Amino acid sequence: MSALLAVAAVSPEIILGDTAGNIARCAASIAEASLRGARLIVLPELALSGYVFHDAAEARAAAITRSDPVWQRLTDVIPEGAVAVVGYAEDAGEAIYNSAAVLTHGGRIGDYRKSHLWGAESSLFSVGDSAGSVYDTPIGRVGVAVCYDNEFPEVPRRLALAGADVLALPVNWPLVDRPEGEHPPETIQAMAAARSSRLPTVIADRAGLERGVEWTGGTAVIDGHGWIAALPDRDGFAVARLTLSDPGDKSIPPFNDLFRDRRPELY
Amino acid sequence: MSALLAVAAVSPEIILGDTAGNIARCAASIAEASLRGARLIVLPELALSGYVFHDAAEARAAAITRSDPVWQRLTDVIPEGAVAVVGYAEDAGEAIYNSAAVLTHGGRIGDYRKSHLWGAESSLFSVGDSAGSVYDTPIGRVGVAVCYDNEFPEVPRRLALAGADVLALPVNWPLVDRPEGEHPPETIQAMAAARSSRLPTVIADRAGLERGVEWTGGTAVIDGHGWIAALPDRDGFAVARLTLSDPGDKSIPPFNDLFRDRRPELY
Repeated sequence: MSALLAVAAVSPEIILGDTAGNIARCAASIAEASLRGARLIVLPELALSGYVFHDAAEARAAAITRSDPVWQRLTDVIPEGAVAVVGYAEDAGEAIYNSAAVLTHGGRIGDYRKSHLWGAESSLFSVGDSAGSVYDTPIGRVGVAVCYDNEFPEVPRRLALAGADVLALPVNWPLVDRPEGEHPPETIQAMAAARSSRLPTVIADRAGLERGVEWTGGTAVIDGHGWIAALPDRDGFAVARLTLSDPGDKSIPPFNDLFRDRRPELY
Repeated sequence: MSALLAVAAVSPEIILGDTAGNIARCAASIAEASLRGARLIVLPELALSGYVFHDAAEARAAAITRSDPVWQRLTDVIPEGAVAVVGYAEDAGEAIYNSAAVLTHGGRIGDYRKSHLWGAESSLFSVGDSAGSVYDTPIGRVGVAVCYDNEFPEVPRRLALAGADVLALPVNWPLVDRPEGEHPPETIQAMAAARSSRLPTVIADRAGLERGVEWTGGTAVIDGHGWIAALPDRDGFAVARLTLSDPGDKSIPPFNDLFRDRRPELY
């Protein structure tokens, strides 16, 4: 049993602190990705706020609640039967989280709060209490993790074992040195995790510069064999049709099975 | 605290069933790697026997015990203070295992029995009861896993958490299709695992053909950042000087730590 799912990862221009503008650009990207047929659309981490905050006060000023009326700008443009995953700074009262919203046409399925915080994030955000989450959506079971979460191999593994059909991964990867000809290291980790658990992964990264931080431009769609199915086109859209196999069947005929061959009693 | 360790992964010619010849060629490879300065020398999975057995009887006929006098041919050529990891079919009485011996000059530190069996191996070998093992050796704490073991991200992670300084990985990777320009998929998984846990990894693979199976030729040394430090030269030796960092310190200054940032209560 397998199904095709058209997906898109998109990296619109994000301007630090320009929430209204970022929402408008994210809405336009969702609308365009939908026109291209995508039914799962992933935008970067903190896409509504930008990333490089000077301090907690600035992060708080850019944060919005789950019930903020501005969300309608996004949910209005998501077609029936499609899902968008969008990173934002979540105002949860006393706490601010680095979250990803799982949105549908006119609605909201859930919000995942990043649980492995990178760099100075721990001085800006509270830490989530789930290592990725899986959401039942109109397009299937969508796993969601954010950036550094996925560098812990336990996270994508856990989501796959929990039955995720596909992983939506909003990220902001600061550019790091790498040998010529190599993929970004975080891409290699996502490729490996995808192959280990047959978990297609849709990565939306930033590109360009923000307050002196250069982003990796690592937006990519990775298929369930761990290979790159799409990179961004000139407009910044990585679009692919993924084959989603039954998440309960990780067999490799004739002898093997990625999950049944595990030895959890030994780990 | 960090130290340099010269390592070599070597892929001598292995002829199915020619135990005496394979031992002679492995001994020559160990001697040559030692001359090149290597203090950790890794040979492929089932290097003393070959891999593509027709049936269990053939595997049993090629198996040797841990106490077989032929081991002296190998331990004699290992210099004082060096370690060699060599794959072989282990005759353990009723059971036959796909094992890796951890050898020193004139001695034997241990034997690891593969615990994730690939393909028809389960009709040839019994399954080991440890998901990789870590051995205290003159050159440090050496983690050992065999081939398919390392495609389970739990295995290298577990060995790194147990304090391995370096992972010795004998493999026999049958060649699979991959997109042009990509590393073999098993290499990508090893690179990702190395980076996730800052665990340098020394991979000895087969090359060429055996009974119609084409090998990947994936012999490589991977550094603790997940990058390829050495591939085989024309003589089949991949030699590199690895920086071994303190396995108890996985910090990424100023804010992060690959291990302390884990959330094991959530996995």
